[in-house]
Amino acid sequence: MADLHLIKAGGNLLEDSEIRKKFLTHFALLEGPKILVHGGGKSATTLAAKMGLEVQMVDGRRITDRAMLEIACMTYAGLLNKSIVAELQALDCNAIGLSGADGNAIRAVKRPVKEIDYGFVGDITKINTALFDQFCQSGIVPVCCALTHDGQGQLLNTNADTLAAAISKCLSTKYEVYLTYCFEKPGVLLNIEDSNSLVPTLDRTHFEALKKSNQIVAGMIPKLTNCFDAIEGGVQEVRIGQMELLNQTIPHTKIQL
Amino acid sequence: MADLHLIKAGGNLLEDSEIRKKFLTHFALLEGPKILVHGGGKSATTLAAKMGLEVQMVDGRRITDRAMLEIACMTYAGLLNKSIVAELQALDCNAIGLSGADGNAIRAVKRPVKEIDYGFVGDITKINTALFDQFCQSGIVPVCCALTHDGQGQLLNTNADTLAAAISKCLSTKYEVYLTYCFEKPGVLLNIEDSNSLVPTLDRTHFEALKKSNQIVAGMIPKLTNCFDAIEGGVQEVRIGQMELLNQTIPHTKIQL
Repeated sequence: MADLHLIKAGGNLLEDSEIRKKFLTHFALLEGPKILVHGGGKSATTLAAKMGLEVQMVDGRRITDRAMLEIACMTYAGLLNKSIVAELQALDCNAIGLSGADGNAIRAVKRPVKEIDYGFVGDITKINTALFDQFCQSGIVPVCCALTHDGQGQLLNTNADTLAAAISKCLSTKYEVYLTYCFEKPGVLLNIEDSNSLVPTLDRTHFEALKKSNQIVAGMIPKLTNCFDAIEGGVQEVRIGQMELLNQTIPHTKIQL
Repeated sequence: MADLHLIKAGGNLLEDSEIRKKFLTHFALLEGPKILVHGGGKSATTLAAKMGLEVQMVDGRRITDRAMLEIACMTYAGLLNKSIVAELQALDCNAIGLSGADGNAIRAVKRPVKEIDYGFVGDITKINTALFDQFCQSGIVPVCCALTHDGQGQLLNTNADTLAAAISKCLSTKYEVYLTYCFEKPGVLLNIEDSNSLVPTLDRTHFEALKKSNQIVAGMIPKLTNCFDAIEGGVQEVRIGQMELLNQTIPHTKIQL
C-alpha cells in the first residue's frame, strides 16, 4: 500500500495570512498523495460579530442555528477554503476544495436532539472513499472544510478533528495513512504554559489516567478521542504537533495503540 | 462526439429558495454530461449591505476591491455554490462545486488598469479542459461559480456569462456543446415589458443593427457578445431563455452563426 498524508490544520494556522503561507508551504512539500482538512471557527466568529450575530456555545461546543450555518458555509467553504486552494495552486500543489456535499464526499445525519439541541450539526455516516482515492490517483489534493450534507439538501456543520479521523480510517483500507493534527502547541502538554511538559507518547490507558486526574485541558479531550478512534481504526500513525513536524523531526505527541 | 449541456443560471434563479429548487429540478433532469455555471451578484450585494459595505459600480459593472472580493468568495463559492451542490445531490445529481482555483480549473489575469480600475477582476486565460472532461466522464457534474485564479494565489471575480462561453468553447473540441443562458425573461426582447417582442433568432448582423438602433438594453449587450463568441467559437447551439427551456420546447432566442 502507498503512503498517504492526512493533515488537519487548526484554525489558528489558517486565519493569519503569514502563518497560513508558512503552513501551506510545509504542506505543499509533503510528497505523494495527501489530504488537508481544515477548521475555521474563528473566521466564523469574526464574521458573525460583523453581522451582529452572537455565537451560542454549550460546553465549549458551538450551537449551529440557521444563521450560523450560513456563516459557516461562507467562511469555511467560501473565503477560507478558496484562499487555501488558490495559495496551494501557487505552490504547485493541485488542490481541490471540498465540502461534504461536493461529489457526495461526506454524508452525515443531523445530530438527534437529546439534552442539547446542537442545531445543524452533522454526525458522519459515510465517507466516499472512491472519490478521495480517485483524486489521489490523479495527483489532485483534496482540501476539506468541516461541512457535510445529509443527502436531502441540508448542509451540516461537522467537527474538523472528527472529519480528519473519519477520512483517515476509511482511506486506511487503501493506503498507509499518516495522520497529523497540526496546531500552535507542540502536542499534549500537562501544563499548557510549559512546553517542557510535553507528553511524547500517549496510549489509551495513559490518556484515561490523565483525564481522571484532570491533567488534560477540556478542549484536548475530544481531539484526543478522535486520535484514538483513528489509531484503533487502522490508521498507521497519529501525531499531534506544530506545522514544522510535517517536514522535520521535532518534539510532538505520538498516539500509540 | 457526445452531447454536453452547459447551463448558465442567472442570479435571480438561485437566490430565492423556491425558484432555485424549481430551476435545479429542471437542471437535474437533463441527461448526459452537463455543467452548471452560476452568478450571484445579488447575494453579494445583500451581504455587503449587512456588513455596511457599499458596492461600487461603473457602467453597470461591479468594482471588486479587496473587501468585495472576500464577499464574492463567501457568497458565490461558499453559501450559494454549496447550497446548489447539496440540493443537486438530493436530486440524485452528483454535483461538485468549483471555483477556478479548484483543480486549477480556470486561470485568469487581473484585468489591466486602463480608464477604469476594476480591481480584483479576472480575464480568463486558460480552461482546464481535461479536468472538466474527467468529471464528465466520471458522471460528476461541475457547478462553477464565477471566481477564477491567477496561479499566484490570487482569486479573481469573473463574469459568469463570459465563463460559461469560455468553458463551452473549450469543451466543444471534445463534445457537441449545447449552451443555454437561463434567466427570468423568455429571451431577447425588443421591449423589455412585452414578451411578445421576443426575438426568436438572432445573428450577428441583426445584433449589430439592434445595437445601433438602441433596441437592446445595455445589460443584454455583454451577454449577447458572449453568446456570439460561443457560437463563433465552435459551440453547437446557443440559446437564451427561461428555465423551462431545459426540458420543454418554449419560445426563446436562438443565436445563429
